[in-house]
Amino acid sequence: MLSRPQTITIIGAGLNGPLLGLSLAKRGFRVEIYERRPDMRRVRIEAGRSINLALSTRGIHALQTAGLWDSLRNLIIPMKGRMMHSIAGELTFQPYGKDEAEVINSISRAELNVALMNAAEVQGAAIHFDQRCIGFELKSGALRLRHEESRQETTLESNVVIGCDGSASAIRHEMLKLNRFNFSQQYLDYGYKELTIPSKLNGGHALEKHALHIWPRGSFMLIALPNVDGTFACILFLPFEGPDSFATLTRHWDVVKFFEGRFPDVVPLTPHLTDNYFTNPTGTMVTIKCSPWYVEGKSLLLGDAAHAIVPFFGQGLNCGFEDCTQLLELLDRHGLDWPRVFKEFDQKRKINTDAIADLAIENFAEMRDRVADPRFLFRKQVELALEARHPRQFVPKYAMVTFHRIPYSVALARGAIQDRILSEICDHIGRIEDLDWAKAGRLITTQLTPLEQEQ
Amino acid sequence: MLSRPQTITIIGAGLNGPLLGLSLAKRGFRVEIYERRPDMRRVRIEAGRSINLALSTRGIHALQTAGLWDSLRNLIIPMKGRMMHSIAGELTFQPYGKDEAEVINSISRAELNVALMNAAEVQGAAIHFDQRCIGFELKSGALRLRHEESRQETTLESNVVIGCDGSASAIRHEMLKLNRFNFSQQYLDYGYKELTIPSKLNGGHALEKHALHIWPRGSFMLIALPNVDGTFACILFLPFEGPDSFATLTRHWDVVKFFEGRFPDVVPLTPHLTDNYFTNPTGTMVTIKCSPWYVEGKSLLLGDAAHAIVPFFGQGLNCGFEDCTQLLELLDRHGLDWPRVFKEFDQKRKINTDAIADLAIENFAEMRDRVADPRFLFRKQVELALEARHPRQFVPKYAMVTFHRIPYSVALARGAIQDRILSEICDHIGRIEDLDWAKAGRLITTQLTPLEQEQ
Repeated sequence: MLSRPQTITIIGAGLNGPLLGLSLAKRGFRVEIYERRPDMRRVRIEAGRSINLALSTRGIHALQTAGLWDSLRNLIIPMKGRMMHSIAGELTFQPYGKDEAEVINSISRAELNVALMNAAEVQGAAIHFDQRCIGFELKSGALRLRHEESRQETTLESNVVIGCDGSASAIRHEMLKLNRFNFSQQYLDYGYKELTIPSKLNGGHALEKHALHIWPRGSFMLIALPNVDGTFACILFLPFEGPDSFATLTRHWDVVKFFEGRFPDVVPLTPHLTDNYFTNPTGTMVTIKCSPWYVEGKSLLLGDAAHAIVPFFGQGLNCGFEDCTQLLELLDRHGLDWPRVFKEFDQKRKINTDAIADLAIENFAEMRDRVADPRFLFRKQVELALEARHPRQFVPKYAMVTFHRIPYSVALARGAIQDRILSEICDHIGRIEDLDWAKAGRLITTQLTPLEQEQ
Repeated sequence: MLSRPQTITIIGAGLNGPLLGLSLAKRGFRVEIYERRPDMRRVRIEAGRSINLALSTRGIHALQTAGLWDSLRNLIIPMKGRMMHSIAGELTFQPYGKDEAEVINSISRAELNVALMNAAEVQGAAIHFDQRCIGFELKSGALRLRHEESRQETTLESNVVIGCDGSASAIRHEMLKLNRFNFSQQYLDYGYKELTIPSKLNGGHALEKHALHIWPRGSFMLIALPNVDGTFACILFLPFEGPDSFATLTRHWDVVKFFEGRFPDVVPLTPHLTDNYFTNPTGTMVTIKCSPWYVEGKSLLLGDAAHAIVPFFGQGLNCGFEDCTQLLELLDRHGLDWPRVFKEFDQKRKINTDAIADLAIENFAEMRDRVADPRFLFRKQVELALEARHPRQFVPKYAMVTFHRIPYSVALARGAIQDRILSEICDHIGRIEDLDWAKAGRLITTQLTPLEQEQ
């Protein structure tokens, strides 16, 4: 495609870097990816910091476009809904979607990462490991790297530098020095801790395999996602301070007592509970917003580097992959006019990444608290019934985000309208048989435009 | 007071540093202030970056407590209200307060700074100039400084370090590296440019001396504050981009035409208009919020370093001085329990500095746009009438912020209630004679508690 290939430098070989790299290599660019960590295909990665990911429509679409989806199917476990665990051990299942096709897919971050790196290399992208970005001269485009073992420093120049280096982005750190760079980082008062539920002796899953398990406890929660090896990745979300918090759970016996009191059905499934708890680090969760994401046509931030979000809508991965999809679409439309591509990407995309950031924070309260409320489950049931009757107008907020590629900002806005409609028709009834369908239809058709027009 | 004096290190000899320093020296501490710039009493300061300040009740209270107010009186010019200039040259005066005592006071930032530095030194605080803070080890408290001329670096330790080093704070920059440090910087899309209106040949002021002059033009504005030497410090606030913006006003002739069209009465008063315009830098305006402001009992951010705000409520100085007042009160209450002092300061103060940050942004639209609207002036008239009838309950928002020491957060909340009441009683009438006083009284007494209870 290009007579003399342009070099595109990508910082970070996490999930977005390799996906973007392989798609750019396909288009004839010379792609050089620099990654701070060692090659995880050769060196064992550290445990306890890798929440399993939930791959859904936006992420799958990007993988399909890159021709990777079919080869990944054996790495995923479809999860059909939420399985809520009460303290008494009662289970309640609530489907995510309107049918069997609307599922989210549990996948190990490490396995997905390996598959993407392999594919990028096959396509001709070069990945350089142990290379920490220690400086980026925004004017000249000169990048300073330091090899993590030899400590040797190199400086290189590139036509374009794309920062796919995550929430602690080194590229963004340099952009902070720019005049009029807007930036915000807001941490949740909650941390997380990864624990493991081993497989059964026969290798099978110890809990229902095709569900995301939630132990909602109001101000905190435990969740579990299935792995293909029969284990569950279990994550405890707990406040840093206060009565039930990481600050108070500091002794072996306190942790055991806490789990026995709050999650009694989990204790027999987690023989290494306290080992896990005291060995694994406590993670933090941050929302990052910044603007602009680019410097002329020279550099761009993408994925968590531009807009880190909290994990409660399972959209971090999917949102990053959608960044790749949309950037590539603009590149195909505008050719090598990088200043225009980057500017339009920022203009089109930021409103949507801001929206999913807010939706993700909203969804935390839903997961840890409201899913335990029968009124909430009733509303979910009504939502599905309304979608069945008005599929072009009333799509539940969760579905717009997870099973469609409707812009996140549209999902946020329509979701708010739908919430008001639901309150108006559900708040005084307790059974779906008592629903005033005519009134619901009237509210929907007057307040919600058909969805096709907005996509 | 102390048997062996503790050393308190203050970074920054701007306005807050010397005020806090002298008050701490009075209490028996050894105070060392390090300032990046040269001593402005010996070296001419750069022009064009020093908006005049408007000293009001909160700032005056702090200066009175420090015993400095009386000696500053000859440096100030009281401004009794806003003088609006229409394009046709018509003048409209709107008083700031309910009587002659409610005025704001124009003062030169440089002159106030010199007075404060002199007073701090008299009290025994040492000020070290040309010393740039280039690092601060949060754990050990070790501070690294570099002399701006000799380039010599020194490291020093201190019991307590207080960052009074403004919106680009070096101390805050180090705190950004802390885990879970919340931070946001948001720039306005507007810049500002300082211009000068010289005094008349006889040394007098070329415009009404006891007013803050405003040329409100909707999407931009010009303001002018009187100086004691007969000049006015004039500031143009203009968008960075767009039709009337710093981006388009790049040629000599464009600037002249712009002023002739938009501010015709200013042109004859500004013989050096284009010189000023092209020589003086274009300033940016940023709102900074962060949390927490302290690291244990070792360091604290204060003033703009903790909470920079835009200048449109004239509260940057007053808010910083109120920080000093409240920190000293907590110190007097809790003694040398620095962890407790810093924690309570943050808890008590941040809610109020967040509020004034939002109020300052709100007030920009009021100054550049709404002050030109007769409806707005009518509402201001009604506000004063309501205050005269209900002085303990209805105090205009501007007055709560400027002439009282009511917490900013209370002013924000009560201001919102009052705005709704004003809309309800003003929106359908055009003369104060038609006001429904009984209804107004009813709304006020049911919705607003007496103010004494909230102070």
